[in-house]
Amino acid sequence: MIDGVNNESLEAQGDRNVVQNGVQYIIRLIMQRDGLPFRHVVELVDDLGGDIIAWDLVRAEDQKTIRDLTVLMPTAAQLKGLTEQLSQLEGVAVENVSDRTFLMHLGGKIEIKPRVQIKTRADLSHVYTPGVARVVEAIAEDPSKAFQLTMKRNTVAIVTDGSAILGLGNLGPKAALPVMEGKSVLFKWLGNVDAVPICLDTTDTDAIVETVVRIAPAFGGINLEDISAPRCFEIERRLQERLDIPVFHDDQHGTATVILAGLINAAKVVNKPLTSMRVVIAGIGAAGTATTELLLHMGVKDIVGYDKEGAIVAGQSYPNHPQWQEYARKTNPHKRTGTLRELLRGADVFIGVSAGNLLTPDDIKEMARDAILFVMANPTPEIQPEVAQAYARVVATGRSDYPNQINNVLCFPGLFRGVLDSRARTVTMGMKVAAAEALAAVVKPEELGPEYIIPSVFNRNVVDKIAEAVSLAAEKDNVARRSSGARI
Amino acid sequence: MIDGVNNESLEAQGDRNVVQNGVQYIIRLIMQRDGLPFRHVVELVDDLGGDIIAWDLVRAEDQKTIRDLTVLMPTAAQLKGLTEQLSQLEGVAVENVSDRTFLMHLGGKIEIKPRVQIKTRADLSHVYTPGVARVVEAIAEDPSKAFQLTMKRNTVAIVTDGSAILGLGNLGPKAALPVMEGKSVLFKWLGNVDAVPICLDTTDTDAIVETVVRIAPAFGGINLEDISAPRCFEIERRLQERLDIPVFHDDQHGTATVILAGLINAAKVVNKPLTSMRVVIAGIGAAGTATTELLLHMGVKDIVGYDKEGAIVAGQSYPNHPQWQEYARKTNPHKRTGTLRELLRGADVFIGVSAGNLLTPDDIKEMARDAILFVMANPTPEIQPEVAQAYARVVATGRSDYPNQINNVLCFPGLFRGVLDSRARTVTMGMKVAAAEALAAVVKPEELGPEYIIPSVFNRNVVDKIAEAVSLAAEKDNVARRSSGARI
Repeated sequence: MIDGVNNESLEAQGDRNVVQNGVQYIIRLIMQRDGLPFRHVVELVDDLGGDIIAWDLVRAEDQKTIRDLTVLMPTAAQLKGLTEQLSQLEGVAVENVSDRTFLMHLGGKIEIKPRVQIKTRADLSHVYTPGVARVVEAIAEDPSKAFQLTMKRNTVAIVTDGSAILGLGNLGPKAALPVMEGKSVLFKWLGNVDAVPICLDTTDTDAIVETVVRIAPAFGGINLEDISAPRCFEIERRLQERLDIPVFHDDQHGTATVILAGLINAAKVVNKPLTSMRVVIAGIGAAGTATTELLLHMGVKDIVGYDKEGAIVAGQSYPNHPQWQEYARKTNPHKRTGTLRELLRGADVFIGVSAGNLLTPDDIKEMARDAILFVMANPTPEIQPEVAQAYARVVATGRSDYPNQINNVLCFPGLFRGVLDSRARTVTMGMKVAAAEALAAVVKPEELGPEYIIPSVFNRNVVDKIAEAVSLAAEKDNVARRSSGARI
Repeated sequence: MIDGVNNESLEAQGDRNVVQNGVQYIIRLIMQRDGLPFRHVVELVDDLGGDIIAWDLVRAEDQKTIRDLTVLMPTAAQLKGLTEQLSQLEGVAVENVSDRTFLMHLGGKIEIKPRVQIKTRADLSHVYTPGVARVVEAIAEDPSKAFQLTMKRNTVAIVTDGSAILGLGNLGPKAALPVMEGKSVLFKWLGNVDAVPICLDTTDTDAIVETVVRIAPAFGGINLEDISAPRCFEIERRLQERLDIPVFHDDQHGTATVILAGLINAAKVVNKPLTSMRVVIAGIGAAGTATTELLLHMGVKDIVGYDKEGAIVAGQSYPNHPQWQEYARKTNPHKRTGTLRELLRGADVFIGVSAGNLLTPDDIKEMARDAILFVMANPTPEIQPEVAQAYARVVATGRSDYPNQINNVLCFPGLFRGVLDSRARTVTMGMKVAAAEALAAVVKPEELGPEYIIPSVFNRNVVDKIAEAVSLAAEKDNVARRSSGARI
């Protein structure tokens, strides 16, 4: 593991190029012993705008050698061109082309690991029959013991219906699996939380609610993921009513929590109280709605939401988006309307969770002095950060190749770690605020600056700080079922 | 791992005692340095019928030492007596008492393990965004690629509603967790199959079917477990109709497959063709029904089922057990009725999957020469094996402390290994027969005898042989979606 405190050390390793400039492929070549020297291959790759990452001998035979050439090509079209031209080189044949990402996915990204050994029949008698019968009876007598004696202690279900996968839309439950498995890897790597992907073959709200209620017994928490708005609001709410374990839609609250952490620090950088700021939020979907609620809870009053139908304001009707009615009621106290530029006039903060290329420099020039811009549309932000930086004091994006990456990975592992350790029944507002404040505080005062308002995802302090804060907040809010002093 | 070929080597290690003679407890004692010597403790344990397993120093302080005493006590009452008397010893105080089985269950028995590393931001970009997006798109375009690129390749769901846990009955989904986790440990340890416990908070047949259909996308197979008869038959059938992955109720078919393997070998020992044998089966529930169907498929014609209402015969009506109507139609060709003893007259095989103490020696004396007895009621068999051995040629039970243990563990890991490797759509009769024959064949001809008709659960040849046979049978039966020659 690399303990990156900010992006600089990772960039220094050249990882920035690896992420930004294309896709890695492994091309297996069969090369005649008298064939062309290596430099012809290098020239070819160069000409096509690629980079050679590695050159490995697989095996040597009498007349030929088999070598794996790992290249970074900017586009798939250029890879195609490369393999065609390689084939035409004298003494060279292309045996196979593999994509590093796909190779890493073969057979899936997670497996089960026993926490107990079975070496003797005695072990078997403890772990299985007959010993296990006594554990069964103990839980039958007191179901809360499932939290101590089973996977419920440390396991959450990552539940999706595949209706809003990343930025790709409704691609279904099987296509969602690689993302859910990736999330499970992150849960375990960062928070030591066991997370099981549950990909549902339905998008019906009632069916989703019933299914999750039925599978809940084995789990200590439910993480909803990639379920499209507005169904996600009702699904989360109904599951919270039905279950005595936390139900947390990360696309809503994880994003909101990390945004809040960034804002807490950005407010310090620009030396304005958070509650005094005028905020414009573009994109009133899952993330935008949850962010707004969290900011209102923090005492930020002047929030205006903006979406496809303009500023969301009381008095308008939104038949296609009934949840905006409620949103209008709680926000935009001064009933502002108009273009996005007009709304931004004098605003302190712009939060974009919408689409790329929404803003121009002239829009930002309208904002208050020391403007704060969180432009998080992925992959193309609402405005390019390097352009925005000329006009705003603090700029953050969702991308890893700019400073101040607002990434949910900074929240969910630590949050669920704290949830499981306190055996919380639910995630309260207080727990979310505690998580945001703890995350913000990982950035030390002497480190805080316009280009460092949020820790790196590789910062190993984040999870423990958030987990501790969330546990304490759960106790304070009376939703904890286990105190931080408990031994098991 | 200990490669036991039969029970002898494990018994030699004294494990037999550990399993049979009580429960292990760890008693933490605080002992004054001038206190009683160790031998007083030994005498006390001895007097109460227990054994000392271990004596460990935890820590030494100025005036006292803390020691963990691991004992094996025959009953909980004797443990209570021991701790009371230990407290009364001069210079000794009991700090805590733990049960070894419970200690092994703390925090659950399984966890998630990532199969990929995340060391750099480049790794993150392959395992999560943005690289994972391309894997998502590949599966969206061709959903069958989920079998190559996700956990679907190697993962089954172990599904229960907690309505028939071991011999304990309907204790619910949370109480079922330790058994399901134990099964997951066995799946991984023996078959390298990843198995996720799904414990359902409903016993409604429709609700169970709908829930499993909805969670199916992430899995390559479904193992139904501890779901009571007769609902289990309908649930399995309906799920097989709805899903394109195998649905296998282990309590039915796992038991049946291992019984068949044992019978194939027992038939050789007694030198009678399997199909010529007259069979009586007591206990026409999940295991009894599935065993009957498998034997009928093998060409065993003369099978009589016996249950609480006597012999199951056509012409009788069974309003409380409608599935016995169908059972009667397929079995008991000679329409036999009467007491169990009368039915056993001249029978070659008795299979008991019912309740303890059902048979007496006089019942067995009625059977044909070289009778075969599989008395598998747990924990108390239909007749004690040591008694039955005087009257039958081959005796098998479900218990580990007698020869010839008929245990489902001998089937499900290898069977699902073969299912996942061949990407079978279902488990056919042919695949079950292949599993049984492969299991039987692990016992070499020169090893075969009345006290060795089935391999030990620790025999490491079993899984590979069964997996290979099941894969080939799947191809033969045209339900395989991947040939044994495939590279991924």
